[in-house]
Amino acid sequence: MSKIIGVSLPNIPWQEKPHGCKEPVWRYGNNPIIKRDAIESSNSIFNSAVVSFEDGFAGVFRCDSRSISMDIFAGFSKDGIHWDINQQPIVFQGEDEEITKREYRYDPRVCYIEDRYYITWCNGYHGPTIGLAYTFDFKTFHQMENSFLPYNRNGVLFPRKINDYYMMLSRPSDTGHTPFGDIFVSQSKDLEYWGHHRHVMSTYSGDASAWQSKKIGPGPVPIETDEGWLLIYHGVINTCNGFVYRMGCAILDIDKPWVVKHRSAAYILAPSEYYECVGDVPNVVFPCATLTDSDTGRIAIYYGCADTVTGLAFTTVDELIQFTKKHPLHA
Amino acid sequence: MSKIIGVSLPNIPWQEKPHGCKEPVWRYGNNPIIKRDAIESSNSIFNSAVVSFEDGFAGVFRCDSRSISMDIFAGFSKDGIHWDINQQPIVFQGEDEEITKREYRYDPRVCYIEDRYYITWCNGYHGPTIGLAYTFDFKTFHQMENSFLPYNRNGVLFPRKINDYYMMLSRPSDTGHTPFGDIFVSQSKDLEYWGHHRHVMSTYSGDASAWQSKKIGPGPVPIETDEGWLLIYHGVINTCNGFVYRMGCAILDIDKPWVVKHRSAAYILAPSEYYECVGDVPNVVFPCATLTDSDTGRIAIYYGCADTVTGLAFTTVDELIQFTKKHPLHA
Amino acid sequence: MSKIIGVSLPNIPWQEKPHGCKEPVWRYGNNPIIKRDAIESSNSIFNSAVVSFEDGFAGVFRCDSRSISMDIFAGFSKDGIHWDINQQPIVFQGEDEEITKREYRYDPRVCYIEDRYYITWCNGYHGPTIGLAYTFDFKTFHQMENSFLPYNRNGVLFPRKINDYYMMLSRPSDTGHTPFGDIFVSQSKDLEYWGHHRHVMSTYSGDASAWQSKKIGPGPVPIETDEGWLLIYHGVINTCNGFVYRMGCAILDIDKPWVVKHRSAAYILAPSEYYECVGDVPNVVFPCATLTDSDTGRIAIYYGCADTVTGLAFTTVDELIQFTKKHPLHA
Amino acid sequence: MSKIIGVSLPNIPWQEKPHGCKEPVWRYGNNPIIKRDAIESSNSIFNSAVVSFEDGFAGVFRCDSRSISMDIFAGFSKDGIHWDINQQPIVFQGEDEEITKREYRYDPRVCYIEDRYYITWCNGYHGPTIGLAYTFDFKTFHQMENSFLPYNRNGVLFPRKINDYYMMLSRPSDTGHTPFGDIFVSQSKDLEYWGHHRHVMSTYSGDASAWQSKKIGPGPVPIETDEGWLLIYHGVINTCNGFVYRMGCAILDIDKPWVVKHRSAAYILAPSEYYECVGDVPNVVFPCATLTDSDTGRIAIYYGCADTVTGLAFTTVDELIQFTKKHPLHA
Amino acid sequence: MSKIIGVSLPNIPWQEKPHGCKEPVWRYGNNPIIKRDAIESSNSIFNSAVVSFEDGFAGVFRCDSRSISMDIFAGFSKDGIHWDINQQPIVFQGEDEEITKREYRYDPRVCYIEDRYYITWCNGYHGPTIGLAYTFDFKTFHQMENSFLPYNRNGVLFPRKINDYYMMLSRPSDTGHTPFGDIFVSQSKDLEYWGHHRHVMSTYSGDASAWQSKKIGPGPVPIETDEGWLLIYHGVINTCNGFVYRMGCAILDIDKPWVVKHRSAAYILAPSEYYECVGDVPNVVFPCATLTDSDTGRIAIYYGCADTVTGLAFTTVDELIQFTKKHPLHA
Amino acid sequence: MSKIIGVSLPNIPWQEKPHGCKEPVWRYGNNPIIKRDAIESSNSIFNSAVVSFEDGFAGVFRCDSRSISMDIFAGFSKDGIHWDINQQPIVFQGEDEEITKREYRYDPRVCYIEDRYYITWCNGYHGPTIGLAYTFDFKTFHQMENSFLPYNRNGVLFPRKINDYYMMLSRPSDTGHTPFGDIFVSQSKDLEYWGHHRHVMSTYSGDASAWQSKKIGPGPVPIETDEGWLLIYHGVINTCNGFVYRMGCAILDIDKPWVVKHRSAAYILAPSEYYECVGDVPNVVFPCATLTDSDTGRIAIYYGCADTVTGLAFTTVDELIQFTKKHPLHA
Repeated sequence: MSKIIGVSLPNIPWQEKPHGCKEPVWRYGNNPIIKRDAIESSNSIFNSAVVSFEDGFAGVFRCDSRSISMDIFAGFSKDGIHWDINQQPIVFQGEDEEITKREYRYDPRVCYIEDRYYITWCNGYHGPTIGLAYTFDFKTFHQMENSFLPYNRNGVLFPRKINDYYMMLSRPSDTGHTPFGDIFVSQSKDLEYWGHHRHVMSTYSGDASAWQSKKIGPGPVPIETDEGWLLIYHGVINTCNGFVYRMGCAILDIDKPWVVKHRSAAYILAPSEYYECVGDVPNVVFPCATLTDSDTGRIAIYYGCADTVTGLAFTTVDELIQFTKKHPLHA
Repeated sequence: MSKIIGVSLPNIPWQEKPHGCKEPVWRYGNNPIIKRDAIESSNSIFNSAVVSFEDGFAGVFRCDSRSISMDIFAGFSKDGIHWDINQQPIVFQGEDEEITKREYRYDPRVCYIEDRYYITWCNGYHGPTIGLAYTFDFKTFHQMENSFLPYNRNGVLFPRKINDYYMMLSRPSDTGHTPFGDIFVSQSKDLEYWGHHRHVMSTYSGDASAWQSKKIGPGPVPIETDEGWLLIYHGVINTCNGFVYRMGCAILDIDKPWVVKHRSAAYILAPSEYYECVGDVPNVVFPCATLTDSDTGRIAIYYGCADTVTGLAFTTVDELIQFTKKHPLHA
Repeated sequence: MSKIIGVSLPNIPWQEKPHGCKEPVWRYGNNPIIKRDAIESSNSIFNSAVVSFEDGFAGVFRCDSRSISMDIFAGFSKDGIHWDINQQPIVFQGEDEEITKREYRYDPRVCYIEDRYYITWCNGYHGPTIGLAYTFDFKTFHQMENSFLPYNRNGVLFPRKINDYYMMLSRPSDTGHTPFGDIFVSQSKDLEYWGHHRHVMSTYSGDASAWQSKKIGPGPVPIETDEGWLLIYHGVINTCNGFVYRMGCAILDIDKPWVVKHRSAAYILAPSEYYECVGDVPNVVFPCATLTDSDTGRIAIYYGCADTVTGLAFTTVDELIQFTKKHPLHA
Repeated sequence: MSKIIGVSLPNIPWQEKPHGCKEPVWRYGNNPIIKRDAIESSNSIFNSAVVSFEDGFAGVFRCDSRSISMDIFAGFSKDGIHWDINQQPIVFQGEDEEITKREYRYDPRVCYIEDRYYITWCNGYHGPTIGLAYTFDFKTFHQMENSFLPYNRNGVLFPRKINDYYMMLSRPSDTGHTPFGDIFVSQSKDLEYWGHHRHVMSTYSGDASAWQSKKIGPGPVPIETDEGWLLIYHGVINTCNGFVYRMGCAILDIDKPWVVKHRSAAYILAPSEYYECVGDVPNVVFPCATLTDSDTGRIAIYYGCADTVTGLAFTTVDELIQFTKKHPLHA
Repeated sequence: MSKIIGVSLPNIPWQEKPHGCKEPVWRYGNNPIIKRDAIESSNSIFNSAVVSFEDGFAGVFRCDSRSISMDIFAGFSKDGIHWDINQQPIVFQGEDEEITKREYRYDPRVCYIEDRYYITWCNGYHGPTIGLAYTFDFKTFHQMENSFLPYNRNGVLFPRKINDYYMMLSRPSDTGHTPFGDIFVSQSKDLEYWGHHRHVMSTYSGDASAWQSKKIGPGPVPIETDEGWLLIYHGVINTCNGFVYRMGCAILDIDKPWVVKHRSAAYILAPSEYYECVGDVPNVVFPCATLTDSDTGRIAIYYGCADTVTGLAFTTVDELIQFTKKHPLHA
Repeated sequence: MSKIIGVSLPNIPWQEKPHGCKEPVWRYGNNPIIKRDAIESSNSIFNSAVVSFEDGFAGVFRCDSRSISMDIFAGFSKDGIHWDINQQPIVFQGEDEEITKREYRYDPRVCYIEDRYYITWCNGYHGPTIGLAYTFDFKTFHQMENSFLPYNRNGVLFPRKINDYYMMLSRPSDTGHTPFGDIFVSQSKDLEYWGHHRHVMSTYSGDASAWQSKKIGPGPVPIETDEGWLLIYHGVINTCNGFVYRMGCAILDIDKPWVVKHRSAAYILAPSEYYECVGDVPNVVFPCATLTDSDTGRIAIYYGCADTVTGLAFTTVDELIQFTKKHPLHA
């Protein structure tokens, strides 16, 4: 039995695995949990991140407006399923207007480290790069320097320092619908200056795991386990009718997270429900956050569906680690 | 309260706005009103135009055959909802075979001016350009000269002369799936020779209104109001999985229709129903005609859905003008 | 009344044409007959081939795994509708490891000639080409030489020698999502060395039959009739949102199968059901096999749906031949 | 012997055909006649137009600046070979700033009709279209309305009205490095409103004349002859290393210039000299003007070379017409 | 010392290696030996093949006409340097008009086997494929069946049967400016039916030999040596300004020519002279033929330059084999 | 008179400006100074960097081998014009093989700071990024961490700390022939961890300075002057026949080098000589280094020509600053 190294979360949203289900991940029975028009101005709400907060949950949500302006919004929930999302986007505080000036913001992640919640997101600064901010209360948000040069997407922090360094996964990209994408990790003493970049994983060329042949990128904040860092990531194939985004799983070395100990050749979740296959961008499942309970090993995955709505799915640390080992990718 | 300047149309098809609906446009409850196989040979019927005619309604319909041959067909209706579409396409009369020779015909609009109904459409003449014809009775159709050089689509007449000139909106394009598109207006004394072309609106580059970032084109015949010409148009964004077509709204100066007085940053209708998201070309709503009633300000919008079927939606002049002013695009 | 020249198949799966249906082909009422997860490892099962075998039916099925690895699997059925597909892919026997070494395998066809069942498929050998094997029992499979140089797809054998030569239809292609494709026929005395290649049909440029404007390829094994070889094929159009795959029909000269006697301008089946429009590759119907009964003229068509599931449809030799003649393509 | 219908031009620049030369067109011995830095600010001077003027010659020249800003400049010459080009671009007078506002200007033609010199050029107005102006003295220039909607290039007037209509050839295009292009003719009573557009010539698909397979466009003002309008045009092929621009020749019906009486399968001049093959855009010869002498049938062709310098070449009306008839294109 | 296995050719054209030259291949001092206008109709003469014939030499030449029609012409020479090329293209005899009907012909090779000269070339048959013909006298040519299905280029025969089979190298391609290309070998008992296709060499991805990263194709007929078959081939890199074609060298197993014994990481000749860098397609050297003398080991290479003229270069069997071994490619 | 803030360099290579030359930069009379085959293995030597060293000069040179393998080599010169380049590439020392492992190396710059020479270059590490190393003697080189995540090119250090921070200019890019590119500056306390990234300059969209419309990137190490940092950079336009690379000039704020004080709309040098227009990549001038003499204000520019050879050009600080101010770009 594998173990999550972390806090208890007895109020984690949860449904038992359906009888007869052989998949490592199963969907919440009442998906999508957040509809496209959950706030007044929204065209779609997806690719969003949640954390345990006070006696319930808080989150940062990507809400594309009916102008298709992309911004991120705070929200709160008692049970992790029903959400109250603010009607106005987050306003960031910061000293340098060069940095706080908004171009566009999307695909947030939230990571609790030490004493505060860090938000990372794809931030428009003469092209997409990784924005970084922190909050204590999801009311006031302090924006820090962008982590990297453009062009980058999917900046994901590790939930603690490793060897005294903050570490961030990301997927360097280009200015458009990037047709490539590997996962790298970068290191920092202060979350301001980053270096010692290491390559973590590449796309896979070949029949053995074609779903991740075009690009891959980190998803939720890695989960610390006794086997290493459990990383849920997205992988993309380019079909003759466009990209299909699926979810995969890898286990990274606990001290050298650029070392991949295990990586699954098989995906753990793929678009097949209506709300995953039909929407503004068909055939997308895109994980951005998990909740985890160390007592039970339960994991709740929040993921964007078809760039339109937000879904919830369940698994356990054991399911994922066993599945990953059982379907190994020999790179 | 804004006013439509035009005739009464007491028999306009109509449903009241659903309770709780906050959108400026709402769909007919029994959409789609025209199915893909409404005539014997049709693969799909969409992007079509209707007008008030005699004691009911007439229209010109794009019916792609089961050979995916594109042509336009006349049709008639008592109530604007149930339609009898001819089994054979329109045959145009004209003197010069160079002009009447059919390559392909699609995306018609119908505009009543003075004493007759003008039909404009995308006409194949060594590439797509704007075909023009008139009819008095929807039985006999007289084809005139093509309005412009190729390559052009979406020619839309104003319903009266402005400063003694006929005026036509259009979207110059290329020979294929054009990745650009602005709206221009052209002027003519005789509907044969066109000049004094003026730029009206561009696509919008930037996050503030990304749904119209790739191309925009005029939709139905502009509606005269006391605020100016009310223009419903289509806007397109290029996602990683293809184009999404939505509807927007602008108000043009009544005398100088190349002057945009107001333009909405937000769309007024976007694909979200099954029949708009799934079909031969997913994620398309494409407006081609309205019916209007000056007594009540009611507007019925006819629009193509997923390049497959025809939908009907409702709004009022007041809804559209208020919405447009409330969500201004600062270009 | 046209006739199928072939064996009786009284147990052919069958449903009568629905009342009021005017189409030449009608779907099985309980489609799809094979779901995407019909075997344990499968992401999708589609583009597959079946034949009459012993007192029931056998088939070779394309099952993409949850790693999106593409391989072909044997399966068996009593009624042609409910299928037991092996959990493991076919293992081919052969002397030269250069040939039997698996890169990827997909889109099989099965053709009975003389005394055995030949399987052809798209076989990875430094690019896609046509793999060829035979079996007597669907348990042991003997792989022969690849028929052609890469790059090729959709190799389809004729069910008997013509003028003492084996003949194979195919669609030469490129290394990716090929944007072109014509049908050719090749000849061989021994199924090892091929030559005397002849062009059969091209895509059609123009409005008269735009659904087959981008590429065409042979589908099931041609059906011998008193009018010639009845060929069901796929045709593709490139819309602004991707490829749409439909089915068409042609009749080839019985002795010179590179001579097209009739070809339909209209398609015989197009994506319109949910399972054809929504899936890993939306808007695809892709026929790979038929069962036929010479006594009744009945034809059951097996086809892949949206690259995800397998569908079944019905027609008769008379329906297809009449339809083809009634909607002729003047090339 | 064919004849030019037009004025005498005894001072036409001229060199006799070199001994042994079998080509229909021969280069001036001291090409290029205008170097890239002939004016102080110029990066390159090419694609320019000259006419007989007073006792010498005048012209309008495309000079790209060292900022690669594209504009047109007046110039004067005694002998048609040595040119004084103004250091400042033409400033156009006109009432409507919407029209006279400069975006960019390039590839001018000059055409004398009745009492004045008309200049047409590729004019930036929300994309390339055809600008139009006139001058009496090459000092003061009056800008008229743009002739067409964008997107268009190579507007070329006929040197007299035909059936009481001004006529203009052009090549409708797209917003970039257009990968297609046919020649059309448009008609106008007043040079302001244009209509009755007719297709003149298409590119040629096939081996018989592959040099004009990608796009074709009109070059100099057509030359009136007793055989019809003699049109020199450019044709483009797309090699694996880019476009090659060559010159071809056609003869149009004198009254219906959209009727092509003869068209040459062979080019009349192709890049082969250093200054034609090497420069900012390698492998371009691009004709924009001719001088003609009706007494002798002599023709002097001015053409841009490699988008960098200006060349001069010679031929006669007889050479061109005989050559065109001798190498006919069967379209 | 390596040896050529073949006939003496004492009259082989020859120049000694220049003093100080360290390259394995050196150019003829008076290149190009065939100018672009060597025959009356030619725009360019390049990519051509020569052989020893009677007391001199004969060849088949690619001459693109001034219509850029591509065809092949016979020619004769006393010394291999000065050539008389026929003014008219080769007319092929053959029974089936389907095969002899000319679309286009280019890039010939000539190979003497047993008692006759075989010509292979890129032959238009609904796309490019390999045409095959033979002659005894370079006056009468008998066209056989096309060897392969389209799409293919660079069919090159071995000069004798190997294990009782004729063998042909080729580079399968697509319909345009193919962005990929490997070398394969195919086998035949009768030159009519081909099979047992084997992969020989791939492009090389990586810095170690980037000049052959985009495509490779066989050049002249392989030269039999005591080390194996000496193959000169072309390799292509895709720079930001287009393709560069260079020459490389490999040694194939004498009995299993799909086994590469040695392959050079370094090219043996690259475009650097004016006539190789400037022309209709800049930066191309493209070898199509060699002459060899077994007495001295001398090799004369004929190669196309910039798709415009024909060059001649020299080397010896020893130079090439030593160079290939000295600069090995570790694939 | 503007002044260079820096050391004297009396032995700077130099030629006076030619009489009558009006350009701000003039070429060395005997260009190219380094031929493509200056070392035994080289296909081309270009895009290279030199500095003053001991009593002469040293440099780091990009030498592409005859395998088109890209690496960097040390070299030495007495006069800055005649160079001895090592026959073997630089071997870097470093502790972490992950970093020192060579994929490819190209386009070096050399910058003296405090006590040593830093080399930056485009370094292959799962894509192009910025490699960094230092040397004291051009014999032993110590490789440090890569500065940034991929994908990046043209890392250029400032020659001193600014406000206690090392600063580096770069041009983030993609994995191929990047069709975009802006200049950014990044900051570091230790040359290991980088942050506080600021945008410096964008490409320019529009006619006013089209030569820099596709991408721009920093060239030599910025020159400190009393007006600010003098930056020579490359700018690229995309013509229909490929990219043209030219040189431009900007002046950056001395303390906030992300503030552009002046930028020239006109280029300062463009390809026009044979060796700049003809070569492996035609039409490229690419500056990588300068030598400067503070006593005289003289500047010697080393630049790559056509990706083939190395050129030398001259200017003065006064010429560049005056020129930049005289041709301002209004962004």
